[in-house]
Formats: sequence, C-alpha cells, structure tokens
Amino acid sequence: MGFIEMTINFSVESRSSDSPARTGTLELENGMFETPIFMPVGTRATVKSLSPEELKKCGTGILLANTYHLYLRPGADVVAEAGGLHEFMNWSRPILTDSGGFQVFSLSDMNEVTEDGVQFQSHLDGSKHFITPEKSVEIQKKLGADIIMAFDECVSYPADREYVEKSLNRTLRWAERSLKAAEDLQDHQHIFGIVQGGTYPDLRKKSARRTRKLDFPGYAIGGLSVGEENKLMYQMLDVTVPELPSKKPRYLMGVGTPRDLIEGVKRGVDMFDCVLPTRLARHGSLYTSRGRINITNAAFKKDFNPPDKDCSCYVCRNYSSAYLRHLIKRNELYGLRLASYHNLYFFLDLMRKLRYNIRRDTLDDFVESFYSGWAEE
Amino acid sequence: MGFIEMTINFSVESRSSDSPARTGTLELENGMFETPIFMPVGTRATVKSLSPEELKKCGTGILLANTYHLYLRPGADVVAEAGGLHEFMNWSRPILTDSGGFQVFSLSDMNEVTEDGVQFQSHLDGSKHFITPEKSVEIQKKLGADIIMAFDECVSYPADREYVEKSLNRTLRWAERSLKAAEDLQDHQHIFGIVQGGTYPDLRKKSARRTRKLDFPGYAIGGLSVGEENKLMYQMLDVTVPELPSKKPRYLMGVGTPRDLIEGVKRGVDMFDCVLPTRLARHGSLYTSRGRINITNAAFKKDFNPPDKDCSCYVCRNYSSAYLRHLIKRNELYGLRLASYHNLYFFLDLMRKLRYNIRRDTLDDFVESFYSGWAEE
Repeated sequence: MGFIEMTINFSVESRSSDSPARTGTLELENGMFETPIFMPVGTRATVKSLSPEELKKCGTGILLANTYHLYLRPGADVVAEAGGLHEFMNWSRPILTDSGGFQVFSLSDMNEVTEDGVQFQSHLDGSKHFITPEKSVEIQKKLGADIIMAFDECVSYPADREYVEKSLNRTLRWAERSLKAAEDLQDHQHIFGIVQGGTYPDLRKKSARRTRKLDFPGYAIGGLSVGEENKLMYQMLDVTVPELPSKKPRYLMGVGTPRDLIEGVKRGVDMFDCVLPTRLARHGSLYTSRGRINITNAAFKKDFNPPDKDCSCYVCRNYSSAYLRHLIKRNELYGLRLASYHNLYFFLDLMRKLRYNIRRDTLDDFVESFYSGWAEE
Repeated sequence: MGFIEMTINFSVESRSSDSPARTGTLELENGMFETPIFMPVGTRATVKSLSPEELKKCGTGILLANTYHLYLRPGADVVAEAGGLHEFMNWSRPILTDSGGFQVFSLSDMNEVTEDGVQFQSHLDGSKHFITPEKSVEIQKKLGADIIMAFDECVSYPADREYVEKSLNRTLRWAERSLKAAEDLQDHQHIFGIVQGGTYPDLRKKSARRTRKLDFPGYAIGGLSVGEENKLMYQMLDVTVPELPSKKPRYLMGVGTPRDLIEGVKRGVDMFDCVLPTRLARHGSLYTSRGRINITNAAFKKDFNPPDKDCSCYVCRNYSSAYLRHLIKRNELYGLRLASYHNLYFFLDLMRKLRYNIRRDTLDDFVESFYSGWAEE
C-alpha cells in the first residue's frame, strides 16, 4: 500500500461556538460512527459479561481490545486463524487495538527498554517476550482491528523531565518505525500515532508537532490519566489539541470519568476509551443522573425504584435497586452483567447527549445542567 | 381457601406404549407449559448469568428458586414487598420454590431435627434459625411462587432403615401440617407433597401411598440423586411412580444428568430440576450431541467449529470452541454466560425431543439414537 491509504474517512460536521468541541463521522470499512465517541473496553476480546447485541443496544459504535492480553492469550495466531478479532468475538462493527505498550509498562514484570524495543515477562506465567514497534504492528495486523496504534512508551507519573524527553524522542522514532511497518497492513486497517510528553506542556507540544509531521490518519494523546490531577490532564489537552490537525480524529487514551469525557470533548477530543464503567459496575458502583452510587449500600435494601429514574436503559426499565443490591452483594453473575450494561449505557448516552448539544450549540448549558446535583468524586 | 383450590390444571395428553412415559400440560396462573419439563435453577432469584429473555429463548417454561437462600438473603419480606419473586426478578412465567428442607440439611451447620421442625445455623453468618412446616409455607407464600413444596427431611445416603422410616413418618406429619398451612396460600399458589423413603423400596411405597392420601395437587419424589448409584435411583422410581395418582404431576427433585432425565421420563416423571447444566458450564463442561466435553482442553485451542455442530443455539450459531475455550480459561464472565446458555439449551431441547417422541410414540428409537455415540460419564 502507498500514501493514499494512509488517509481516513473522517469528517467534522459541527463545531461548538464557545470551545474546540466538535462532532464528526468516522467511516471505517466495518462501519461508521459519530464522534465524540466512547469505546467500551473488551480487554480479552470480550467486554466483560456483555454480548455484542447488548453492546449495540447501548450504542457502541467501536470497541477496544488489548493487544498485550490477546498476544499472550490466546495468541495472535489463534485470532488470525479464526479470521481476525471481528470473527473471533462475533463483533461486526469497528475495533481498535492498542499497541500493547501501556500494559507492557504497567502490568508485566522486569521490563527493559532499549532503542530496539521492550523486553518483559508475562504477568501470567513469567515467560519472556520482546516487543518492538514492528512486532506490535505485526501482532495488530494479525488481530485485524480497524484502527491500530503505533508502539509507544507510556511514562508513569510523576516522571522527571529528562526521562520524559528522552522517552518521547524514542517514542517518535518508534512511531516512524510503526508507520513504516504499517505499510503492510490489511486493507481495512489504519494506524494512529500517539503523543506523549508527560505533564510538561512544552514536551507535549513538541511531541504533538513531531508526531503530526509523520502524517498519521489519526492521533492519540497517551500517558494521561495515569495518576496526575484532573486539572493537569485538562491543561495538557489545552496545549496538545491545538497542535494536532483539525481534520483528523483525536483520541484521548484510557480516559475516563464522565467529567473527564465532558472536559475532553470541550477541548476537542473525538474518541475515548476506559475500563471505568465496566470495572466499577462489578463493584456495585453505578452511574446515575445524580452521580455515582454504591448499590450495595443498606439504603437500597428495600428500594424498589430503578437505580436511575431518569435512565431508560434495559436495567432501569426492568429491575429495582433492591434486586441489583441483592445480586451484587452475592456476587451473582447476572448482577455484574446488569450493572455493566447500565454503566456502559450511561457513558454512551452521555456521549449521545454531548453530540446532540454540540450540534445545537448548547454544550455549555447542557454541561452546566449535567453537573448540577452531580456528586461523583 | 377450601378443597376446590387444592386441585391443579394438569392434563395428560399422550402416553408411550412401551413405558409409563407421558406428555401433558400444566396450566398455572402465570403461564402453561408442556411436560415432561426441565426447570432451570435460579437459586438466589437468578439463573446464574442469564436474563429472563434468554431463559425464554432456551425454552424455559418454569424455573426453580431456593427458599433457604432467599429466606437468608435478601429475606422473604424484601421479596414480598417487591411484589413477590416474579416482580423481584422480572420473570413472568411460573416459578417453583423448594421448601428449604434440602439446604437446611445439606448446607447449614449444626441442624437439629425435632418433631416441631429444624434448628440450623446460616452457612453465611452463623445466625440461628428455626424452620417448621408452617414457617416454610409462610416463607414460600411471601416469595409467591406458583408451586411451593411441603417441608420435608431429605435423608442423606447411605442411611439406615430405622432412621429413614422414622424420618419419613415425621415428613408425613410435616406434610399434613404443610397442607394445613397452605390453606392460606395466595390464589395462584399450589403445594406439592414430597415422597421420601431413602433407597428402601417398601419405605418408598409406604411414603408414596400415605402422601397420596393427603391429596396434594402434585407429588415430588425427593431424596434421590444424593449419592446413590443411578440404578438404585431408577429402581426407586420404578416402585414409587405407580403409587402416585396418574392424573397429577410428578416431579423428581434435583435430578439430573441427561441420562437421568431420559430414564426418569421413561418411568413417568413429568418435572425435573437440577443445577448441573449451569454449574458444569461454569467449569467449561459442555453438553453436546456426542457427549460431555471440556472446552478448556488444549484440543480446542484452534477449533473454530461450534462446540456442537448439531446444536442450533445462539452460542453454536455464533461462536467457536476456540473462543469459548479462550474465555473460560480466563474465567471471563461472558464465557460463563455462553456456556450456561448452551447447556440449558441442550437440556431444554432434550426435553422438547422427548415430548415430541412420546407424542409420536417413538421414544425408544429416539433414546437409542441419543445414546449411540454418547460419552458422558
């Protein structure tokens, strides 16, 4: 493949008059979706407890799967022989895979970073692996996602400036190598570059400018929501987003809470992913229009109302807080499933509302009304 | 309520010419179903991992919930205030609750049996409880199932004759007390009596005859599949079933494997329940037309066929053995769910086929063909 296929079919359709917020459409070979969008996380080729039909009912336009986990189990070859991730997991709409970098740095043991790549030990069985940008792209090619990510180093927080700068320079060289390796992708695949730079505004800008020069079809902002304060993350978005091309999709990796999504959208982000809604659900923490509640609280023992009276999801239409409390306190699988469904619905519904209000140019009003009476953190 | 409401709307519709096997229809206020039927077990007001819609798609006509578990958590009052089990768990079709007797004897600590009832300690928190026949009926009235069970003692196996006889006599007195307490049931509720007698043919006969005299709307055969050999269980059915009224439903409690279902049906049993399909599913053990397989075996790593090519369930139509193996090896919730669905479908489909072949009077041929190539035990 050559230059032309490095483009992506993304169009910006409306812009907020008070902020860089915007709506758009990303059209991929396996389907199109409107942005800003939230991508549910299907770590091991499954969004925990939920069926493809349910994910679609929630409004999932694209989901994310983790290269690191799938590379270890069941292995990229198994997925490739199954016909790729879509076939393997029975998901027909678009999929995005991360590069594996984040997990290599956060989950595995004894990783060693060299110019060539990263050596690490599997968190499952201690086996040794060496991942390079080329290897990451090759694995992602086998997995067959619609959007794949360049291999990067995700620096933990806090990190000193010298290390962050050294790391981002290496990540830039890895981005170039990833892009070169991606010349050989499957026809339906596209690769995004990743901006790093820790919490240093000038390094973020530098990383964004130099990554942009490589002319990826889309850009991710990585290394945020790794422990820094929310304000710092929003500041980094403020300096990074303006450096990215306005006509290409922007993806804030691993973020976040409803507040983070709103603040990201206001700063011009188009795509998000996070395990938060499903992970919290499994601990009985449910998002509602009045904030986050813990359904296992004694207060819900005889509460026969739905968890959120303002929610029209399957769970809130059919079940009471008392029933959910009963199930989740006993760790019943169906309770984990209902809570996961509800939280994903909440996140995807929030994105729908954000898109609607950007189009009507009423984003500020909507956000103000959303935050009123909201008690999450 | 008086005598007339102790009847039940059950009609036998066809009989096998070679065996006591029969089909029928049981019509309850919350729905009707054909017999012989298998009841999925929803221990804590949930059939583990599955939705009501999925249970219906599998062909579930009635499900079972456990009085002991629900009495302890969330408590019968919570369920009653929710509007009963149907409302609480969003299940509109019929429900059967057991009496709690089996769990009191098998799960709880330090139970002491007296003429009045059973004292036991909760397996959850050690709290002390005393259950009598009257209390069991009262709890079941609150839970609001369509069919409730008389309180009985389920004797473990092996048990000496003297104890079994003493116990069955007490169970008969408890049956009388249960029946009296049941005069006050909700309009849609019916109570079944339970035959005990261990593995002693004459005691089984005695228990059946004397329970029958009490004129319950239906009869269960309890205390089987508790450790005895299959043959012994089948012998007990051979002597017990003929003692029960031919016009009333017969329910074999807590049974069993596909083979047990077939052998029970051949002996004139109309209803079954068992945790086996869902429990085994969660360990990766799947029923197929060629027998039971363990999907986590290495042989399935790259097997991209469905678990059972002859099965037309949702799982077999959409997923490969390789994917199920991947999910279940990682204990993924969606894997437990798919396996549970598949196994329940298998059991309910087997019952459909048994009914079909009884009606056509081709039961023996069907059973022979089912067993050929079947490798379960």
